[in-house]
Amino acid sequence: MFNKVYLIGVGLINASLAKDLRRHKLAKYIVGIGRDEGRLSKAKSLGVIDEHQLLQDIDISDADIIVVGVPVGKIKDTFSVLKSSLSAKTILTDVGSSKTNVVNAAIEVFGELPINFVPGHPIAGSEQSGFEHSVENLYQNRKVILTPTEKTLESASNTVTEMWERVGATVDLMPADKHDAILSATSHLPHMVAYNLVNYLGQREDAESIFNYAAGGFYDFTRIASSDPTMWADICIANKHEIIHSIDGFVASLNGLKQKIVEQDKSAIFALFDQAKQLRDKNLNK
Amino acid sequence: MFNKVYLIGVGLINASLAKDLRRHKLAKYIVGIGRDEGRLSKAKSLGVIDEHQLLQDIDISDADIIVVGVPVGKIKDTFSVLKSSLSAKTILTDVGSSKTNVVNAAIEVFGELPINFVPGHPIAGSEQSGFEHSVENLYQNRKVILTPTEKTLESASNTVTEMWERVGATVDLMPADKHDAILSATSHLPHMVAYNLVNYLGQREDAESIFNYAAGGFYDFTRIASSDPTMWADICIANKHEIIHSIDGFVASLNGLKQKIVEQDKSAIFALFDQAKQLRDKNLNK
Repeated sequence: MFNKVYLIGVGLINASLAKDLRRHKLAKYIVGIGRDEGRLSKAKSLGVIDEHQLLQDIDISDADIIVVGVPVGKIKDTFSVLKSSLSAKTILTDVGSSKTNVVNAAIEVFGELPINFVPGHPIAGSEQSGFEHSVENLYQNRKVILTPTEKTLESASNTVTEMWERVGATVDLMPADKHDAILSATSHLPHMVAYNLVNYLGQREDAESIFNYAAGGFYDFTRIASSDPTMWADICIANKHEIIHSIDGFVASLNGLKQKIVEQDKSAIFALFDQAKQLRDKNLNK
Repeated sequence: MFNKVYLIGVGLINASLAKDLRRHKLAKYIVGIGRDEGRLSKAKSLGVIDEHQLLQDIDISDADIIVVGVPVGKIKDTFSVLKSSLSAKTILTDVGSSKTNVVNAAIEVFGELPINFVPGHPIAGSEQSGFEHSVENLYQNRKVILTPTEKTLESASNTVTEMWERVGATVDLMPADKHDAILSATSHLPHMVAYNLVNYLGQREDAESIFNYAAGGFYDFTRIASSDPTMWADICIANKHEIIHSIDGFVASLNGLKQKIVEQDKSAIFALFDQAKQLRDKNLNK
């Protein structure tokens, strides 16, 4: 499918993609690009990539496709590095968790949105990070959202769609702002809540006892609070408005529940819990 | 260890205990008591209990030990039914998720706290409920908290401790109010947050898309929102003050994080997430 693939950033998402591109014979040669020579060498020695280059040195003019997988706060700087050698024929996509800011960064850096630019987001993250945790088949039955811009050629969207489908994913297209609203709710808000829950408990006087008596449910519940802090701090800035909106809505709703507890209105509390259970059992049980 | 055990309520916790009491030859005869004849018959036919009786009919004067496993809102009514035939020799314990209200219910019903009354809480719940989900070995390596009162005989505490230890648990003793404060943080607050997260998302205009794009992390995160609503509405009333305190602290902390997002203070956000990750990785990774 591709002769030469450049992966900018060789973390969990891009390295897992590399493994599948190779396994399914979708890429002849994969170049990994990053900032840390030592880590890139290790990724190469593990066979994740065929070659590595440091981000500042690169010439990506012979790329069929470039997949940018860096924290979303680094996306603009990354585009700036790519700009000088980016061919008009090369497809440029990314795997960032927010999309409006990626589109805005492209406008700022490239002036006009490239016609082969297809912003994307495979919904397949984990609390783990780094190529050491990359796995084959990560994208099987996962969803990938692409947010082509008004300038994006259909052929470019089709190519990126095909790439993700051939590694097992289902691909949906939608506007970047819709992506950001949905993900602020399904992913960003839960991360804020989980990080905050651990911090709140950690600052309580009885923190030691609390962690001592935390059981399995709590472990699952806070799993995502072990996610990469750099990546998530970037997402907070990149999708600030939607995240604030989601936090405000969540807090208003939680205060509504609290009020029912203050009033000892057991039937109202039961109704809220019953509704949540039904919503989840209907929509989320897998 | 016991000739005759009465289990009041044959749900996940008591039925799992029954299986282990039998397996480890700790009980010769187990009577299951409840409100639903059909369900009790089924539990008997599955071999979980040897005999069943309806709650209103019971004579428990020959019990060696009674384990009350009903929603904590039903504990007072349950004690009232037990009162007339409770022998002074019989050990009375429970498995409720809140403890102060159980002690208060005992004072109200019995007038004076029984000397063989040992309030308890095995920290081994699940989002599943009912004897159908009971399993052997549920308590292996789990913690059980006992909150003996000032009237409780040491021999009674020792017997209940031994019972839980012989089915694999570690037993800690502490005052009821300390238990309630800790559990409000480790268990009750996360349940409030999970129920509320699902409800908040379910009421958004984009709810359908949100559930459609929810991924594995979200599934884990909201697992406890599939817990039994009756049980949890009862816990909210029973441990009201500690739960309100925990919700207030959590919301204040979340609003602190939100403020940093409003200010786009990335280094402060990073520091909060990094602290949470370190706290969790240190205290909770299993």
